[in-house]
Amino acid sequence: MAERRPFDVLNNAINNTVIVGMKGGYEFRGVMVAYDVHMNLVLEKAEQLQGGEVKRGVGTVLVRGDSVTFISPS
Amino acid sequence: MAERRPFDVLNNAINNTVIVGMKGGYEFRGVMVAYDVHMNLVLEKAEQLQGGEVKRGVGTVLVRGDSVTFISPS
Amino acid sequence: MAERRPFDVLNNAINNTVIVGMKGGYEFRGVMVAYDVHMNLVLEKAEQLQGGEVKRGVGTVLVRGDSVTFISPS
Amino acid sequence: MAERRPFDVLNNAINNTVIVGMKGGYEFRGVMVAYDVHMNLVLEKAEQLQGGEVKRGVGTVLVRGDSVTFISPS
Amino acid sequence: MAERRPFDVLNNAINNTVIVGMKGGYEFRGVMVAYDVHMNLVLEKAEQLQGGEVKRGVGTVLVRGDSVTFISPS
Amino acid sequence: MAERRPFDVLNNAINNTVIVGMKGGYEFRGVMVAYDVHMNLVLEKAEQLQGGEVKRGVGTVLVRGDSVTFISPS
Amino acid sequence: MAERRPFDVLNNAINNTVIVGMKGGYEFRGVMVAYDVHMNLVLEKAEQLQGGEVKRGVGTVLVRGDSVTFISPS
Repeated sequence: MAERRPFDVLNNAINNTVIVGMKGGYEFRGVMVAYDVHMNLVLEKAEQLQGGEVKRGVGTVLVRGDSVTFISPS
Repeated sequence: MAERRPFDVLNNAINNTVIVGMKGGYEFRGVMVAYDVHMNLVLEKAEQLQGGEVKRGVGTVLVRGDSVTFISPS
Repeated sequence: MAERRPFDVLNNAINNTVIVGMKGGYEFRGVMVAYDVHMNLVLEKAEQLQGGEVKRGVGTVLVRGDSVTFISPS
Repeated sequence: MAERRPFDVLNNAINNTVIVGMKGGYEFRGVMVAYDVHMNLVLEKAEQLQGGEVKRGVGTVLVRGDSVTFISPS
Repeated sequence: MAERRPFDVLNNAINNTVIVGMKGGYEFRGVMVAYDVHMNLVLEKAEQLQGGEVKRGVGTVLVRGDSVTFISPS
Repeated sequence: MAERRPFDVLNNAINNTVIVGMKGGYEFRGVMVAYDVHMNLVLEKAEQLQGGEVKRGVGTVLVRGDSVTFISPS
Repeated sequence: MAERRPFDVLNNAINNTVIVGMKGGYEFRGVMVAYDVHMNLVLEKAEQLQGGEVKRGVGTVLVRGDSVTFISPS
């Protein structure tokens, strides 16, 4: 069944791993445990990725919605 | 018949393949299954494109409207 | 007779070819069939231009007003 | 007599030639025939300038206020 | 006596020469004759500066507040 | 237990060390002692980091929320 | 005692020297004599710094809050 509202994707992704694209061109990958209407997100067990490579582990990270370009559940 | 309002393009594109231009200069191509008034979009079977070449498959992706520059139905 | 309000240009350009300047430095050229108060635009028979050269045809395209820098009717 | 409000400059420049600085670093020069509170402008007999050189004629152009950095009547 | 509100600086600078820093990295220098709450400014006898050097005279210029980074009375 | 709202991360991080990602690509690391709804933050014993290296100590710093891209408690 | 609200840092810094980080990557250092809720700031005896080096003295400067990235009292 198709999603009907964009935020359904976020709701369905709770406790699942997502890739988050960031305005600076890098990405975070982690387990999304919270989000709000501004697309502020909390990831746990998160890694920062650059060019598809893991740059470093960051544990828990609050990502500011204003810096998010896309969110892709895995 | 000509479109009369910009969002008609989005409504008509539901369940069809679209190309989405992104502020960082790259594009997504996928089947649009949801959008909202901020132009937040959900694509399925999506691919990320750079310079017209497929960079990688991303499956389902929620694209943040603020990062969208254009949307072109195919 | 001179235009009196900026949006008159858009209204007068409906069903005519326009050049649309984009924040990334490239342009679209196509027949404008719709616009709204945010300067979201719909072009048909559109082409993407870079440095004055046609880069590719894109058919119908919804251009997000936030990415528009100028619109010039031809 | 000194101007008292910034928009007086726009009002006084109607039907006169202005230079418009744009965020991308280039400029338009043309006869300003309309403006609104967002600093959306309409120029006629307009030329696009880069580094002080005329790059091309654009005829009538609607310039989006969000992309304007300055306006200088000549 | 110390200034108490930021806009006092603007009020005190009316009819005096100011340097205006712009987002693109360049500056204007001129006699400020008007401003509003958005920090839109009007300068007269204005010059555009790049790297501290006068690039050109621009006469009267309306500077869009959104492009201003700082204003320094001389 | 998983966080439920993004700002819970900020609340839990009070008086703890955090890494703050900034739009310019650098980071601050310090003890977060205050935040508000705009994600304006106050760090104490703060250091500015570039490419993972300490660039300099800055003591107390008020970080403007608009420039924040992510916040990661350590 | 820890600060409780971000703007307390500004209030406490009145008449003290601060370093102000700017979006363009440079900094101002001066005595802060005024601020408002937009983080518009007035510095006196101010210097513009680039890469930690004094580039020039600017005397009094009104810094637009929108261009501020951080403020650090010394």
